[in-house]
Amino acid sequence: MTRPFTAGDFARRMEHAAAQAADAGLTGVLVTPGPDLVYLTGYAPIAITERITLLALHPGRRPALIAPILERPDAEAAPAAGALELSDWTDGEDPYAAAARLLDADGRYAISDPAWAMHLLGLQRTLPGSRYVSMTDALPMLRAVKGPDEIARLAEAGEAADASLEEIVKVRFAGRTEAEIAADLTALLEKHGHSQVDFTVVGSGPNGANPHHEMSDRTIEEGDMVVLDFGGIRDGYGSDTTRTVHVGEATDEEREVFEIVRRAQQAGFDAVRPGVPCQEVDRAARKVIADAGYGEYFIHRVGHGIGQTTHEPPYMIEGETRPIEPGMCFSIEPGIYLPGRFGVRIEDIVVATADGGRRLNNTSREMRIVA
Amino acid sequence: MTRPFTAGDFARRMEHAAAQAADAGLTGVLVTPGPDLVYLTGYAPIAITERITLLALHPGRRPALIAPILERPDAEAAPAAGALELSDWTDGEDPYAAAARLLDADGRYAISDPAWAMHLLGLQRTLPGSRYVSMTDALPMLRAVKGPDEIARLAEAGEAADASLEEIVKVRFAGRTEAEIAADLTALLEKHGHSQVDFTVVGSGPNGANPHHEMSDRTIEEGDMVVLDFGGIRDGYGSDTTRTVHVGEATDEEREVFEIVRRAQQAGFDAVRPGVPCQEVDRAARKVIADAGYGEYFIHRVGHGIGQTTHEPPYMIEGETRPIEPGMCFSIEPGIYLPGRFGVRIEDIVVATADGGRRLNNTSREMRIVA
Repeated sequence: MTRPFTAGDFARRMEHAAAQAADAGLTGVLVTPGPDLVYLTGYAPIAITERITLLALHPGRRPALIAPILERPDAEAAPAAGALELSDWTDGEDPYAAAARLLDADGRYAISDPAWAMHLLGLQRTLPGSRYVSMTDALPMLRAVKGPDEIARLAEAGEAADASLEEIVKVRFAGRTEAEIAADLTALLEKHGHSQVDFTVVGSGPNGANPHHEMSDRTIEEGDMVVLDFGGIRDGYGSDTTRTVHVGEATDEEREVFEIVRRAQQAGFDAVRPGVPCQEVDRAARKVIADAGYGEYFIHRVGHGIGQTTHEPPYMIEGETRPIEPGMCFSIEPGIYLPGRFGVRIEDIVVATADGGRRLNNTSREMRIVA
Repeated sequence: MTRPFTAGDFARRMEHAAAQAADAGLTGVLVTPGPDLVYLTGYAPIAITERITLLALHPGRRPALIAPILERPDAEAAPAAGALELSDWTDGEDPYAAAARLLDADGRYAISDPAWAMHLLGLQRTLPGSRYVSMTDALPMLRAVKGPDEIARLAEAGEAADASLEEIVKVRFAGRTEAEIAADLTALLEKHGHSQVDFTVVGSGPNGANPHHEMSDRTIEEGDMVVLDFGGIRDGYGSDTTRTVHVGEATDEEREVFEIVRRAQQAGFDAVRPGVPCQEVDRAARKVIADAGYGEYFIHRVGHGIGQTTHEPPYMIEGETRPIEPGMCFSIEPGIYLPGRFGVRIEDIVVATADGGRRLNNTSREMRIVA
């Protein structure tokens, strides 16, 4: 078991975020409900609604949180509440005038990516001299470097996903639908401690060639390649792993494509070292696939960060020149998608250490034959 | 059973939205994944992610949808796909440059309330001459007037919520925790056809005095007032009803407070007529509570619209001067919250008709005594 995060952890995170904002030439950081707010305060309002809740962090000032008055009791119970200047607004008054009192009128702020456009427009209207930039553009690495307590949680989530994989490969695939296998996966993730299942992709045969296919009522057949990509949240942190299995014996072509993806995934992993630009992980994996002549069939970036959400910075993508730092956790998940035929993807979560990458998923990356 | 919405339904809705934008002096409407997109196209991407998906509607032009390339197969399968000009963007290119090609460089657009701030900022940066206003500010009534097929779904969702209420009042309350009753409510809503349960508020004793309290491990006791507020999505449309029950016999004061709320809810209902400003529903209910001397203990608006979400325009709130129109569906839910002691709230979903209101919740509004 991991220890709970403390008020001290949250205070340090808020202070660090404000300092990062100052370093980036910003006045402060604006945070709305979602993973940023949970990370900084432990506060997760029960409903993310049309009513604005906003945390404002400024270097050298006490963090300030404004909430709708009817959510104030919940805000007061937040783990970081003791460090917050709390205020509220009431239905019928202008929420943006109230929220704007936390801001400098001509301030320049980073704001949470998923903040509602309605709320941003309200602040822009109320404070025409203020300027905003998304968290991903201004402070993409705010939550990217994980502390030991966070890595421990991600490792446990990875072990739970691995345990689910080891059980699912023993079930019968042929003659059952993708939706049935997906339901099995959901049950397994929950059995292994996940509080939330975010996705259970079961892409059999031609469906595997659509990288964002989730599942369908297609019946899986002998001879199908099947992409299994699943994950969710366990103890507040995410899991996300992909293995591609084959129902019965595979053809030479299927084995060849699989082996290219396996080598690409390994090449991406081998590229992980502190100081290396994130895009190099993408390039290393992509080069293997391109050199094998399948470049046009690998149509997505090679990876994404993971933490309190299953998709967050840092992104392993062409153009991301920021360096890998120890403590960053991200997926490496190259794939080849042959339209109308089949797809192969292999994905591990990897944490960067001083010496290179450490995998948080450790099931076999060889082709597994299922029944 | 209700009939499925057709491609023709979606085409009409998109045309109507573009026309409403023109009436409001706007260039067009920008829609991101969520209820607006489902309403207009039937398209619900499996993941609402950091990757932009955008529908652009302009009067007299073919609707245009841009999606991440890896979600293109899903977009092509959307019910309204035949009416859409589809395009895509690929990881590594600038998604906002790609999305901006759907917009007029100096256009003025309404944009979905929950669109990500990151996406809005990307469009603002790419097209500095463009201007944006939230859907709620510009076209608050876009989805507010429901068609007969939508009202039929809301009525069925209301019946399912009512059936759940009739079963929950028969279970044992005293000695069980709020969380246990909430779990019962979730199971009942699912049993009665809900695909999604959005909230199951069980506020017993002093917890009932926090209007956004959801549930806790508090053990319910003889003599507690208990607020039950629950709802979710059934067949694509929402339910939301509140009844306040009492464990064993109530005191005179509890009965008096309950009766004031019941009369306030009735007064709000009686105020519903086409042409009446929405705020009059709030005023009518609030007046009953204020006249009884409890005005300071009613700290939220009296209602919100409901449709594909459980919270949407029109809002029954002071300052909302737009008139009620036949087909609008909304909650009427006054409450009195006595801090540290107890709360009472009574809520029905109501549809406005030419003759006045029609309730979609029809369980007794008298105080129910539970065991």
